[in-house]
Amino acid sequence: MNDFRFLRALRREPVDTTPVWIMRQAGRYLPEYRATRARAGSFLALAKTPELACEVTLQPLARFELDAAILFSDILTVPDAMGLGLHFVEGEGPKFARPLRSAADIARLGVPDPAQDLRYVTDAVSLIRRELGDRAPLIGFAGSPWTLACYMIEGEGSSSYARAKAMMWNDPVSLHRLLDVNARAVAAYLLAQIEAGAQALQVFDTWGGLLAPAAFREFSQRYLHQVAALVKADPRARDVPLILFSKGANGHLEGLAASGCDALGLDWTIGLDEARARVGDRVALQGNLDPATLHASPEAIRSEVQATLASYGRGPGHVFNLGHGITPDIDPAHVAVLVDAVHEYGRGMGNGK
Amino acid sequence: MNDFRFLRALRREPVDTTPVWIMRQAGRYLPEYRATRARAGSFLALAKTPELACEVTLQPLARFELDAAILFSDILTVPDAMGLGLHFVEGEGPKFARPLRSAADIARLGVPDPAQDLRYVTDAVSLIRRELGDRAPLIGFAGSPWTLACYMIEGEGSSSYARAKAMMWNDPVSLHRLLDVNARAVAAYLLAQIEAGAQALQVFDTWGGLLAPAAFREFSQRYLHQVAALVKADPRARDVPLILFSKGANGHLEGLAASGCDALGLDWTIGLDEARARVGDRVALQGNLDPATLHASPEAIRSEVQATLASYGRGPGHVFNLGHGITPDIDPAHVAVLVDAVHEYGRGMGNGK
Repeated sequence: MNDFRFLRALRREPVDTTPVWIMRQAGRYLPEYRATRARAGSFLALAKTPELACEVTLQPLARFELDAAILFSDILTVPDAMGLGLHFVEGEGPKFARPLRSAADIARLGVPDPAQDLRYVTDAVSLIRRELGDRAPLIGFAGSPWTLACYMIEGEGSSSYARAKAMMWNDPVSLHRLLDVNARAVAAYLLAQIEAGAQALQVFDTWGGLLAPAAFREFSQRYLHQVAALVKADPRARDVPLILFSKGANGHLEGLAASGCDALGLDWTIGLDEARARVGDRVALQGNLDPATLHASPEAIRSEVQATLASYGRGPGHVFNLGHGITPDIDPAHVAVLVDAVHEYGRGMGNGK
Repeated sequence: MNDFRFLRALRREPVDTTPVWIMRQAGRYLPEYRATRARAGSFLALAKTPELACEVTLQPLARFELDAAILFSDILTVPDAMGLGLHFVEGEGPKFARPLRSAADIARLGVPDPAQDLRYVTDAVSLIRRELGDRAPLIGFAGSPWTLACYMIEGEGSSSYARAKAMMWNDPVSLHRLLDVNARAVAAYLLAQIEAGAQALQVFDTWGGLLAPAAFREFSQRYLHQVAALVKADPRARDVPLILFSKGANGHLEGLAASGCDALGLDWTIGLDEARARVGDRVALQGNLDPATLHASPEAIRSEVQATLASYGRGPGHVFNLGHGITPDIDPAHVAVLVDAVHEYGRGMGNGK
């Protein structure tokens, strides 16, 4: 089933209407997600139990006409498998018990074996693929080397990641070593997800946009290129489109498109018209409605969907999405409005060239 | 004393070396600031007592060879003067006792009379000017209409300002009314600061960069233009350069430069070379070192200063600054390294055309 419109759009092939999925579509805005999450006891138990991860992955597809499912998991599973001790503190987000505090901490790191150390993820992928059947393709994902490094060095979320950035100047050799290990770990992890059944991949570079231009190229983009090269060199990835989403990195679309990826995810702070003019001959584009739009009335949501589709314009290569994850305070009825509006107004948009 | 190099650079006139000041230079990274703050009892008492505001404004100039002083105050003084009840909750930031919750709340708002309702600010400006003498010019400032609206609607800080954004779609008439009141209030406030002695002005559009392109133009940029037009139309502002700093709005430099302002502040996510190529024939540029750079070693700080100066290149029109405010965890000795490096490496850079 390689003719899903989501996969076709990522290959910039004609589609009947614009495909749509939503970052964090399996999430807290859904009452059924909150129920499963409560049953699991914790976010991590939910992510680490394949049956429960499968259950929440499929929940949004039962409600909405989404064109893709995305594995329910967390980008920090990889550093957790490296031994950093991931846990979640209620209301505070992720923390590592053993953040990287020295060059020695980094020197000790190795690439985890996904078959061993991340088996719960590949098991979840296999199970979801089995349960999904032909309903929709399944997206696997990972965090970017730089974004993982931010959390690994800081030990938790931060508004500036000043500690991670300080390492750019104070110990660039160690930081490069960390980013290289992360890149190899991420590539191996993504390939294991393909092996288990993932049909497309997305890399989330959530904190790339916090970097100055030269730093972005050296510490984020370079390792996104490494991940893309390692994945694309593997025969298992032949038919599996790769999406790079580097939030806030609008200044770097050309450099990102040159990675060999198939598509770029975009946040909402750039027009799809501008992005398409700059890189649309090389990659598909995914995005980019402001997630806050889902607070608007159904009429306003429909008109913003139309405006977003019009901004991309006619021709293949557009996957509709939000410009960032959906937030917990959104009414699921508004998501239905969005998904239906994309399919209605997108009809015929993705044809021709 | 209109030949300060800071004012000359803002007018794109030749200077002996590149002028530098630092956003939030009077702040918590300075032990003497923390001492005065402790004496004041609260942030708001500090901001509202002219003698104390003057004291902390001058503190960084006693330590570093800064080319400008900036009034110690807060952007939320204006909504406070409109009756929203500003207070600060330790560790949580600013809150309003009476955030705007309805169209009626907005309809009731009026433009405060700075001479009456913000007298403590104009008194502080006069006092600082007197104390400063000819040492350095004094910058006055205000928040942008959109950024103030974000706080006024939300009632406190937020990562997404979803409530403020929702109003763009759900009650745009009220939001435009609010932004218009804010623009008139900000202009009157800035003019009052000039009257009291401010020699340059900066408008902080901290949250403009959270908006999608069309929304930015309609709800942020339009009202920055209104503020600039109102200020520039007043004879008192004739020799007072106006700087607009719209954080994260790199996609909008041309539109911002068309406001009639004299300079644009830039965050660190764009190269000064690119910004100068786009708008450097119309406005001066202020910025834009990543504030996290101050965590680096003195050698690394010096080399990043050089790189930033080189990115702007030769010719007038550059005011050195960080790309955002300095953070409390910075060693003041590193600030001295930065300021001295700017003056050393900037020598001769701002000459010619």
